[in-house]
Amino acid sequence: MPTSNHSQQPIGIFDSGLGGLTVVKELNLHLPNERIVYFGDTARVPYGGKSAQTIIRYSREIVRALLKYKVKMVVVACNTASSLALEVLKKEFNVPIIGVIEPGAKKAVGVTRNKKIGIIATSSTIKSGKYAKNILKLDKDVRVFSQPCPLFVPLVEEGWFAHKVTYEVAQQYLAQIKKAGIDTLILGCTHYPLLKEVLGHVMGLKVELVDSASEVAVKVQELLINKKLLRSRLGPAGHVFIVSDEPEQFKRLAIRFLGGGVKNVRRHHYV
Amino acid sequence: MPTSNHSQQPIGIFDSGLGGLTVVKELNLHLPNERIVYFGDTARVPYGGKSAQTIIRYSREIVRALLKYKVKMVVVACNTASSLALEVLKKEFNVPIIGVIEPGAKKAVGVTRNKKIGIIATSSTIKSGKYAKNILKLDKDVRVFSQPCPLFVPLVEEGWFAHKVTYEVAQQYLAQIKKAGIDTLILGCTHYPLLKEVLGHVMGLKVELVDSASEVAVKVQELLINKKLLRSRLGPAGHVFIVSDEPEQFKRLAIRFLGGGVKNVRRHHYV
Repeated sequence: MPTSNHSQQPIGIFDSGLGGLTVVKELNLHLPNERIVYFGDTARVPYGGKSAQTIIRYSREIVRALLKYKVKMVVVACNTASSLALEVLKKEFNVPIIGVIEPGAKKAVGVTRNKKIGIIATSSTIKSGKYAKNILKLDKDVRVFSQPCPLFVPLVEEGWFAHKVTYEVAQQYLAQIKKAGIDTLILGCTHYPLLKEVLGHVMGLKVELVDSASEVAVKVQELLINKKLLRSRLGPAGHVFIVSDEPEQFKRLAIRFLGGGVKNVRRHHYV
Repeated sequence: MPTSNHSQQPIGIFDSGLGGLTVVKELNLHLPNERIVYFGDTARVPYGGKSAQTIIRYSREIVRALLKYKVKMVVVACNTASSLALEVLKKEFNVPIIGVIEPGAKKAVGVTRNKKIGIIATSSTIKSGKYAKNILKLDKDVRVFSQPCPLFVPLVEEGWFAHKVTYEVAQQYLAQIKKAGIDTLILGCTHYPLLKEVLGHVMGLKVELVDSASEVAVKVQELLINKKLLRSRLGPAGHVFIVSDEPEQFKRLAIRFLGGGVKNVRRHHYV
């Protein structure tokens, strides 16, 4: 297989915190030869209620930090950062950058039969309207129903995945889009796959839950093949995890997402 | 009344976000002549789960920003920052600095009759052990029962002050300290006074809820009198509010805490 000079370099991924590890998990499955440099902005998490200006500034700083690790491409795993900063990042940096919104929208459009798609995400992601825009670009006949769910991230971080309270919060948040008769629900935040049991229960069996992580992995694979950037070398993945707050807490919580294998965790110091 | 040269200068107050406005409200009542410069670190909120090292760095940056406004003293309104950063700040800066832990502890020790005090706060505040330490310094016979309540801040920010879900979360968090038979509960986070209704309901009439805001105002007053720093000039308070994220959202939410009067909101840009 022909490869470019950069093919042995790692893939850069970032998220506001731990959520992006759901994308790392899918990449591990689809592209086991690849090395990953993951950046979790744990000192400034969460992004979901913050402004575009702030999210753009944070994302820019993180891409710069990832480029120091000579990453061959960047995955913006955070839905909020993908919604608010992706276009700016693509303009400013000379490395392939992909987000999670477009793959998630594509998957949902492929899944829906009644052309009614629901989106749950952070307030900032919903406010950006990026999911709706991407869906309508693919199929202008789809009807989109959006709901911000600001309590889901703290509930995941509390570890209340299948708690009675989480169930009740989900019932309240999902009431409107359930009533709208959607058949497809986009989990528009990397934390939400951990609530699949509760979300599935509340929405019922006829609604398919779409999380973009696996679709993102497919898109990364396509991009690496097209650009001749697939890593050919076999052997241990040797991922590096960088966090802006204390590494120990990240290690402890990361197991909820990855189930293990989080060893090389470093602390990033902002200048 | 004798005054120093600095007496006309404003009081600096900071918090991770909006919560410290409960302290501003009390200061407005106790010291209506004083001008306040309030700093809410809305771009990096919340502090409650972050490490001491990160909280110290953030607090240091904010005190520096406040000193540019020539504040005559600094109130660390955030319980997490008071727990983790106060001692460092006092050493590093040449201006009187007070936190909210010691006043809250003092008030609770004055209130309890059965010498059993409960503390609810963020994870980082509880982990620091500072409330317990301050209480035992005042009365070594008091028994202290602590409980981190990480979901309370997001619930307040969602505006679910008296929501069924908030009630259930409170029942779970408070079960152990209720069983311990405390007669005094310290609300060890500036957001929690907004949940007084629910907390009072769960704990029952025999438990007194102590929030440090009014006690902090008393301590500020004492300090200003002792140091001859009370502002003598009458007239409009002219508070200034500085936030690190978008001012508009802060203005909109601040009304929940202050009930109005939040006009001059500026954005702080980190260097």
